[in-house]
Amino acid sequence: MTQVMNIGLLGFGTVGTGVLEIVEQHQDKLAHQIGANVKVKKILVNDLEKERGIHVQPEQLTTNVEDIIHDEDIDVVIEVMGGIEEARRCMKLALENGKHVVTANKDVMALYGSELLKTANDKHCDLFYEASVAGGIPILRTIVEGLASDRITKIMGIVNGTTNYILTKMTKEGRLYEDVLKEAQALGYAEADPTADVGGLDAARKIAILGTLGFSMNLDLDDVSVEGITEVTSQDLAYSKQLGYTMKLVGIANRQDDKVEVSVQPTLVPHEHPLASVDNEFNAVYVNGEAVGETMFYGPGAGKLPTATAVVSDLVEVLKNKRLGVNGNSAVIPQYDKQLKTPDEIRSKYFMRIHAKDLPGTFASLTALFLKNNISLEKILQVPLNEGKLAEIIIVTHEVTKADYDRVRKELNNEDVVIEVKSSYRAEGEMN
Amino acid sequence: MTQVMNIGLLGFGTVGTGVLEIVEQHQDKLAHQIGANVKVKKILVNDLEKERGIHVQPEQLTTNVEDIIHDEDIDVVIEVMGGIEEARRCMKLALENGKHVVTANKDVMALYGSELLKTANDKHCDLFYEASVAGGIPILRTIVEGLASDRITKIMGIVNGTTNYILTKMTKEGRLYEDVLKEAQALGYAEADPTADVGGLDAARKIAILGTLGFSMNLDLDDVSVEGITEVTSQDLAYSKQLGYTMKLVGIANRQDDKVEVSVQPTLVPHEHPLASVDNEFNAVYVNGEAVGETMFYGPGAGKLPTATAVVSDLVEVLKNKRLGVNGNSAVIPQYDKQLKTPDEIRSKYFMRIHAKDLPGTFASLTALFLKNNISLEKILQVPLNEGKLAEIIIVTHEVTKADYDRVRKELNNEDVVIEVKSSYRAEGEMN
Repeated sequence: MTQVMNIGLLGFGTVGTGVLEIVEQHQDKLAHQIGANVKVKKILVNDLEKERGIHVQPEQLTTNVEDIIHDEDIDVVIEVMGGIEEARRCMKLALENGKHVVTANKDVMALYGSELLKTANDKHCDLFYEASVAGGIPILRTIVEGLASDRITKIMGIVNGTTNYILTKMTKEGRLYEDVLKEAQALGYAEADPTADVGGLDAARKIAILGTLGFSMNLDLDDVSVEGITEVTSQDLAYSKQLGYTMKLVGIANRQDDKVEVSVQPTLVPHEHPLASVDNEFNAVYVNGEAVGETMFYGPGAGKLPTATAVVSDLVEVLKNKRLGVNGNSAVIPQYDKQLKTPDEIRSKYFMRIHAKDLPGTFASLTALFLKNNISLEKILQVPLNEGKLAEIIIVTHEVTKADYDRVRKELNNEDVVIEVKSSYRAEGEMN
Repeated sequence: MTQVMNIGLLGFGTVGTGVLEIVEQHQDKLAHQIGANVKVKKILVNDLEKERGIHVQPEQLTTNVEDIIHDEDIDVVIEVMGGIEEARRCMKLALENGKHVVTANKDVMALYGSELLKTANDKHCDLFYEASVAGGIPILRTIVEGLASDRITKIMGIVNGTTNYILTKMTKEGRLYEDVLKEAQALGYAEADPTADVGGLDAARKIAILGTLGFSMNLDLDDVSVEGITEVTSQDLAYSKQLGYTMKLVGIANRQDDKVEVSVQPTLVPHEHPLASVDNEFNAVYVNGEAVGETMFYGPGAGKLPTATAVVSDLVEVLKNKRLGVNGNSAVIPQYDKQLKTPDEIRSKYFMRIHAKDLPGTFASLTALFLKNNISLEKILQVPLNEGKLAEIIIVTHEVTKADYDRVRKELNNEDVVIEVKSSYRAEGEMN
């Protein structure tokens, strides 16, 4: 008689339904992988009477989470209810009652991940969350498994579909930010309140999760320097393109020795970099490891089936671990103390667009200022504007420290010839 | 007392040394993942006395494979000796003696994979070969795991680093094939005898392996239609670029319903397709699944550490399966009967470059011929050559059947106005 492993499902919306469908339709394949049958025993819902277009037994449904976390037959709890505080409470309760947890909730993992992972560790439980970052890409597993025999030095991710869609349309079709945002909302690619996406917060949560795993260091959302895409203009995109770059909202986590930096910002990526051709609503995560070198994983970031598929992969992993007796061993508890880079340790190239008076000597005084601040320039473009009364000057620096760059940016505002620093972006991913 | 799992290593060259290093340096991490310790007990070598720059006990080494396959303590045999016939014999012996096998050998897997997988299945053994295709990318595992809850419809792979390096340099630097090939040989990216690479055979082996796994159908090397890059000219590359395409050597495996097609050929990929920016010696595999949609995995195709890392990942999987009691269950034995598409079922776009007499009516007679063969044209470019005595005509078709295309190509040679069909390529990967 084959063993049965019972699952409790918290939430029965789009993703929850997808999980139930996959588990039911792939019974044989799951049994082959795990060596046991898998059954969704109970499902937490808000409304027992709601019509769901999928067959469930009335006794499978409950409105009380206690029915699930105190059911001794249930081995694993899958959290797909969404939201933050209630989801966190339910996951914590489940772990405290010795249930393994699989979640698709990036908000909870970015805010309370370290607390929940600690509870999981104390209780020798697994807590897996592949679906929380780029559902269609098995990136967390790849990072964790890669880590078993490698050391990651850099992660760059396009991890927000909404902003990537907007930037792609602005770049390729020359359209305005507001116009594309409206279209994205109409198509369902952007929320009615798009703040978390366009402001960079959603990407920040994901890069915090990626950095925490990749560097085995407890990186919080507060550690992430965040800048969104709301100030990006068509001019910036056009000049970027002319200079050989594509603008993307990139989450960056990098390490030198034991110090790390985590940030999200609109970033210029060279046309020939693999991230540059990740378009529309797609996501991609580029990982640099000492042993394996450069790798990139590309796919859909969200959607019912990609997300449910990622949840089921985690479920299979938990159940395998359970039969192996190795639950709670995953390399998810940060091993190193957090050490963040200071601005004079963060190194990058930068793009800057300046409006200056078009006078003899303007350019010389600007370059002198850059030089004084240890900043040498790689690319320079000067365009007359406003019938020659104004010069638009675009520069790309060589690799410099953030401290030097921030200082020169401030000092530029005090220069007589400078009218305004119109925009400034990081440039990353120069291929060797 | 923790259990010990013993490994036999066949071959102790670059990759074998890498495997030993990883296993020794990551003992704790491996134990955490598997729930047992891992030890390389015996190593098959040609020369017991050779200096190897790595510490081994003399009793670990043997020149006789029988010492390994009859050692009852050895659970898993890792084949990294290379070559074909002897490697196949050793793997078969190991499986027949109930050892699980991990191999990095694409030649053996492409030629004798079905025979070896059948032996593995009969003996309830695992036979894993992640390192045989694109060592730095966990693509086989991703396909197998993805299959548990998805149905793959298309695989496109840049799976040969040598040819990708050559095409990249020809495209970006406008250099000649012979010139870049020589450079690649000097840099160690191409073999002294590059035939298997530039002729497409190496890529054909890999796409046969990918197609077999992806469609769960026993695809042999003989089923792959193969064309190499030796005839690709600078003109073709220049026109491709002008029309919005990048030339890549692409292995293609696609399916409609239950019929499949497997091929390798120089292929025009739209600039905006993720494969188009996979440059130099890098590999990438693009997979389209019904549930998850489009995904792509990018990384180094070869190298000591990427390959050894892939071998160790397989090893971990085998050992986990052993402790779970689920060895031999992997979905690697083809489940479906092979059904290859006929030429009138293979659909694609095509690029053709024609030299024709520059006479009034030339173009009309050509388009009439295409039309008669059910081929409509998407892009047309006509350039006068040789002081206007000659017209170079480049066309890109809409999606047509291979049967229609091959027929029109033949008939073009009988047209009075046609001097020569200079070149012809497949075009794939139009984004929607």
